Amino acid sequence: MSTPFHVAVIGLGAMGMGAARSCLRAGLTTYGIDLSESARSQLQQAGAAAVMADARPLAETLDAVLLLVVNAAQVRRILLGEEGLARHLKPGTAVMISSTISAADAASLAGELAQLGLLMLDAPVSGGAIKADAGEMTVMAAGAEAAFDKLAPVLDAVAGRVYRVGSDPGQGSTVKIIHQLLAGVHIAVAAEAMALASKAGISLDLMYDVVTHAAGNSWMFENRMPRVLTGDYQARSAVDIFVKDLNLVADTARALHFPLPLASTALNMFLAASNAGHGHEDDSAVIKTFSGIQLPGQEERS
Amino acid sequence: MSTPFHVAVIGLGAMGMGAARSCLRAGLTTYGIDLSESARSQLQQAGAAAVMADARPLAETLDAVLLLVVNAAQVRRILLGEEGLARHLKPGTAVMISSTISAADAASLAGELAQLGLLMLDAPVSGGAIKADAGEMTVMAAGAEAAFDKLAPVLDAVAGRVYRVGSDPGQGSTVKIIHQLLAGVHIAVAAEAMALASKAGISLDLMYDVVTHAAGNSWMFENRMPRVLTGDYQARSAVDIFVKDLNLVADTARALHFPLPLASTALNMFLAASNAGHGHEDDSAVIKTFSGIQLPGQEERS
Repeated sequence: MSTPFHVAVIGLGAMGMGAARSCLRAGLTTYGIDLSESARSQLQQAGAAAVMADARPLAETLDAVLLLVVNAAQVRRILLGEEGLARHLKPGTAVMISSTISAADAASLAGELAQLGLLMLDAPVSGGAIKADAGEMTVMAAGAEAAFDKLAPVLDAVAGRVYRVGSDPGQGSTVKIIHQLLAGVHIAVAAEAMALASKAGISLDLMYDVVTHAAGNSWMFENRMPRVLTGDYQARSAVDIFVKDLNLVADTARALHFPLPLASTALNMFLAASNAGHGHEDDSAVIKTFSGIQLPGQEERS
Repeated sequence: MSTPFHVAVIGLGAMGMGAARSCLRAGLTTYGIDLSESARSQLQQAGAAAVMADARPLAETLDAVLLLVVNAAQVRRILLGEEGLARHLKPGTAVMISSTISAADAASLAGELAQLGLLMLDAPVSGGAIKADAGEMTVMAAGAEAAFDKLAPVLDAVAGRVYRVGSDPGQGSTVKIIHQLLAGVHIAVAAEAMALASKAGISLDLMYDVVTHAAGNSWMFENRMPRVLTGDYQARSAVDIFVKDLNLVADTARALHFPLPLASTALNMFLAASNAGHGHEDDSAVIKTFSGIQLPGQEERS
């Protein structure tokens, strides 16, 4: 690239840090924005052009902003709040929102940013921290052609695969939310099956081995159930993330007046786990909602 | 093997036919038993020592019997009914029950066969017709050491993998039933997610592509949803099979006084599909319980 491309990555959690490193590796002039000083210094050491807690001083320099914060409320506050970034950006700057938010939020944010002359890509991601770090995230993106064009250097840097879902912001979020419906139900049913195996006196190691070699397998079963086998519930992705994501699923279904018998049941299971004090544990801790079984590393649950 | 090993395979459906062919290929003297003349002549042409509708004339010749019929009622009638086979078998003959039945049925059948001096292996299978035909079924087996020993030639012939679940008949069935819990919920939630995608105006082909390349994937999603994409609901495995299997799941949970929020919801979805007239269609037709969406090859559902 002849002229440098300036991108600010806002939200240096597991995914945002990986995305920012991927931008650096691709030769983009990359800024890291986070409230956490340790996250900022980590990206500084990786070669960031600058790190800070607030992107506004950079606003006029930027070609693009990539947001990977926790939820729609944070996105809205950072972009459009009282001290919001959006009104300081040059017209034509592209904003890529990769947080998991509702389709309605994505659509309304796109409208408000358009009024400021900004491009927006509704671009949630999946793949986990390792893929983020490798620049191999899967991006489910919806937005105008111009937003895709402007963000091409960022998409090239962070994504292994880009799905162009459509031209209307909100469609990317919908695809991501439907993906999360499957992911959440698969974790909850993995827990339900392993809890039943425990109650029936079946070896959980054997049950895991059978399922992962047969048609009952899922990506989530295979990935999450080793945590039950070892009794290690330190959060990689927490119960409360699926409370949030399955609530987004429920919001989507409500807006479409559509019934979701399994997703609503799974939401209640994650809510029960969170309500019992397990919200910050690994999402596999949803198995702790089942009583009267002895799990590895746990007292019998009564 | 110096002395020939005589095995009767009872039930020449997709799985039984494959198992019988695998026994033939392994050099066992194999008899095929089925009420269907076309199934019998198919196995005859494959080299069966004999085919018939009733195994009793063979009884004294047999070293082993492998049952792959539809349900516990058929198993019980064939072995212990008025014209039952069991009392004609030599003491020490081994009976391998590979139909999916309840743990309680497996345990009581084992007790009754033991009173006749017969060995029994509770040995449900998975893997589908292609693996059965290749002699690569997965077998989840429970029973006495002597039953495993006697059935070794059959297990070697039909199984790619044998799990020794335990020594108590019923434990193999429990493992299979828990596997079916996962398989059934995965099909139902695949349908729920694709139905929501349809309602939200998302391309089903794109949704399939995203899920099968991401953490929301399951073996069943990947295997079954192409049938929704093409609108081909000709049964490979029917809706009513999962009504049966999820009822076995529910029986197991009831006997253990254990709650299964997701499996009971999925059972109701398959029951709704069957009740609406789709019981003999492919199990992916559970998606037809969702109204107000336009699926490939279907009229809009109202």
